[in-house]
Amino acid sequence: MGSRQRHRAWLRSGWIPALALAGVVLGRAGSALASAGSAGHEDPFAGILFALALVVTSALLGRWLAARLGMASVVGELVIGVAVGNALYQLGDPLAVVLMHSGTVNDVVREAWLSGRSIAQAAQQVMGDEKLVPGTPGAQVIALLGGPDGPRLFMLMTALWIFSSFGVILLLFLVGLESTIEGMLQVGGRAAAVAAVGIAAPFALGWATSLWLLPDEAATTHLFHGAALTATSVGITARVFKDLGRLQSDEARVILGAAVIDDVLGLVILAIVVGIVATGRVELDAIARIALLSAAFLGAVLWLGEGLARRVVRLFAALERSQVKLLMPLVFGFLLAWAANEIGLASIVGAFAAGLVLRDELFEDAGSEARTLHEMLAPLESIFAPVFFVLMGMQVDLGHFREPATLALGGAFVAAAIAGKLAVGLAAGPGVDKLSIGIGMVPRGEVGLIFASIGKSLGVIDDAVFSAVVLMVITTTLVAPVGLGWSLRRGTGAGAAS
Amino acid sequence: MGSRQRHRAWLRSGWIPALALAGVVLGRAGSALASAGSAGHEDPFAGILFALALVVTSALLGRWLAARLGMASVVGELVIGVAVGNALYQLGDPLAVVLMHSGTVNDVVREAWLSGRSIAQAAQQVMGDEKLVPGTPGAQVIALLGGPDGPRLFMLMTALWIFSSFGVILLLFLVGLESTIEGMLQVGGRAAAVAAVGIAAPFALGWATSLWLLPDEAATTHLFHGAALTATSVGITARVFKDLGRLQSDEARVILGAAVIDDVLGLVILAIVVGIVATGRVELDAIARIALLSAAFLGAVLWLGEGLARRVVRLFAALERSQVKLLMPLVFGFLLAWAANEIGLASIVGAFAAGLVLRDELFEDAGSEARTLHEMLAPLESIFAPVFFVLMGMQVDLGHFREPATLALGGAFVAAAIAGKLAVGLAAGPGVDKLSIGIGMVPRGEVGLIFASIGKSLGVIDDAVFSAVVLMVITTTLVAPVGLGWSLRRGTGAGAAS
Repeated sequence: MGSRQRHRAWLRSGWIPALALAGVVLGRAGSALASAGSAGHEDPFAGILFALALVVTSALLGRWLAARLGMASVVGELVIGVAVGNALYQLGDPLAVVLMHSGTVNDVVREAWLSGRSIAQAAQQVMGDEKLVPGTPGAQVIALLGGPDGPRLFMLMTALWIFSSFGVILLLFLVGLESTIEGMLQVGGRAAAVAAVGIAAPFALGWATSLWLLPDEAATTHLFHGAALTATSVGITARVFKDLGRLQSDEARVILGAAVIDDVLGLVILAIVVGIVATGRVELDAIARIALLSAAFLGAVLWLGEGLARRVVRLFAALERSQVKLLMPLVFGFLLAWAANEIGLASIVGAFAAGLVLRDELFEDAGSEARTLHEMLAPLESIFAPVFFVLMGMQVDLGHFREPATLALGGAFVAAAIAGKLAVGLAAGPGVDKLSIGIGMVPRGEVGLIFASIGKSLGVIDDAVFSAVVLMVITTTLVAPVGLGWSLRRGTGAGAAS
Repeated sequence: MGSRQRHRAWLRSGWIPALALAGVVLGRAGSALASAGSAGHEDPFAGILFALALVVTSALLGRWLAARLGMASVVGELVIGVAVGNALYQLGDPLAVVLMHSGTVNDVVREAWLSGRSIAQAAQQVMGDEKLVPGTPGAQVIALLGGPDGPRLFMLMTALWIFSSFGVILLLFLVGLESTIEGMLQVGGRAAAVAAVGIAAPFALGWATSLWLLPDEAATTHLFHGAALTATSVGITARVFKDLGRLQSDEARVILGAAVIDDVLGLVILAIVVGIVATGRVELDAIARIALLSAAFLGAVLWLGEGLARRVVRLFAALERSQVKLLMPLVFGFLLAWAANEIGLASIVGAFAAGLVLRDELFEDAGSEARTLHEMLAPLESIFAPVFFVLMGMQVDLGHFREPATLALGGAFVAAAIAGKLAVGLAAGPGVDKLSIGIGMVPRGEVGLIFASIGKSLGVIDDAVFSAVVLMVITTTLVAPVGLGWSLRRGTGAGAAS
């Protein structure tokens, strides 16, 4: 996996070389012994643990770097993923190659399985001959996949995908947990107006940009590009205000309220757009049906969810009091995520809704655990969510940025994304710093990435555009803390209400 | 997945039918809508979450039942796995069918992948024509696997295997965490003698039983059967004494000390036996080499491990103080598990060694987290370890017990396992209740199951013998609490030291 290069490049500390040396010695010694035939019982899970350890350590290094540069942690995880993924990809590391083309790999394996043909034949079917000319990335992927190490690489890739999917589910569940139904209903018209403009303006700008720069793409692709610009990241926004000690300001409350509404609206929009992609064309009755279904699901969860949760808590408490605050939320979140997917929504919508429903008070009579739900579940998220972001970064092929078209597209998306969110200041009403609210809405963070990855898995967003969207997410997330810091300091002296 | 049947059979409570009804309605509604084509973007991870939720809930139900019957939790998880797995298997549930034959499934998929042929052709190669006659379980598995749902089923099976492997690693890591190097060195000659007899006697009896009842099997198979009887479960033993309020008695301390030594010796024996299986014959120099390698690895970890751990703790604390007590132990455990596997030991040996090395004091200067390592990591284990035991139970094909030969073999293993451990009383020395110490060493628990599953994955233990070994594990684990309770109450009045 080349952990040595990774560490040395990123941290000039005495510990890293020492640790790396130990790793090299251990690894080499192990390989030598294993190939000498003395032992050689292979547990395939050991490789998965090694990959997981490296991804978690990389995430930590990324977060450390981000903290040193005053950036949000998520930026560090993404950037280290991009750096490590592309470095290993250039070095021809098999796992990095397979991860960079995970969508293609899944398609080819599925085709080979269902058609009963070999990997090479399935690749011709899926990718076409021109993408398999010797020397192309496609040929490299298929050579690895069809080789003797193919099953192991696929298993490693699948395991990382499983841990990363687990991470997003837990992340959205915790975001939901940090929000409450009451909090969402309390944020008045001001937050709602900001949220509405914050959805509509970036969507329109993103859609127009896509139409303008990619005239040959399908209508669904333009819709997806518009939708990918709508999200606001509650986590990043909140952390920026917290870092600046302004969490209780009017601006912070309006932004956080709007961001919560935005999150839900964005997910509904995602469901709508995904539904349109699935049916292949813009069907107004399908939109209405999906919107109704989404509303019905969320409505049912919000209105009936608490009653259901109470019953499930009591059931789990009757089964085992000591574990109730850990296992009940997880099972509840998993089942709502599954139910959302069954109904046609994204599974993360279900996880978010489950988090929204659950509150510590529901557990007051059930069990002796004094820790809050957040304290119980945050450790799980701490391990798995970074896997999602590092893996996301590892799928950004920097090679795409060599092409001026992609770079131009990325730049245009960045401009549309920032301009669209700055426009929300118009809806913020009097007495607050409109510019700060606009900048505060800019970071896209995890939700934007989730949009991009779903679009990629649906085949609506191709590799080049995916890279452009990730560039947009990284840039907006990097720009916001810097811009907001400047704006708030300026605003304090100029015209802020508080 | 048939969660309805599962719940109703196991718990006559008002909540279960209510929850089940909600599940049915939601599930059916979802299917109807999805098949109506209104939505239909499928996230394959949603099915994994559903399966995980059901497995965790089943584990809870099993533990609840076990608690009601005064049994150890692990027995409940196993038994519910056996019950649910066999019920769903009889009903023809696709996932249960695939899980019951997971070894065959992996072999066939691997063969199909590497040979470039179809699932059906690979199955003929791997299983032979006679196991694929229509109507046999083999034909059923291959029909499912080669069908349109094959990739999804394989993915589900793989995901559950990944979570379950993660669970065993965490379990052994926590068992290691509960033991200390000092504690192991302090237990004197008495515990060591008990441990030695507790390994030698069951090994000899198991080996002799295997030779006697299975005369046609290879020498390696007899060795594996002997090795599978050697382990003692620290967790179960400790919990039985704790439940009876006798954790501080002389008997408890001797048993716990011996069980810790037993655990390590048992794992070394596993490594030796696995090495012999890998080389195909009994090679004395290979045994010596593996024994040396095991000793060197464990020695290095025990002598140098603390220094290494200190450095890694300082490194992680420098990167991010708030997460150090969560992420450092996990990464350290993962890397030692991987290193152990690279060297030829089982990865669980590495995880156990990592747990042995880590202590809360190592983290005193690093970070503000007041919780103990055990408190930080136990929640993770609570979710994933039960997946291992429930899945283990689901792989027990009760159909094997219809064959008198398997039943006789299981009975003989039970007799050998109990007699072998009762013999340790002879080595316990004066002043303690010899019978209680013997009975206290009887439960095999998780370690015996790990032996069986490794033997199965190596192809040394076939399905029928696997079922016999699981019968032995279940029986010894069930018998011990009852027998120990009786023996200790008798011993208090008769001749115990304290």
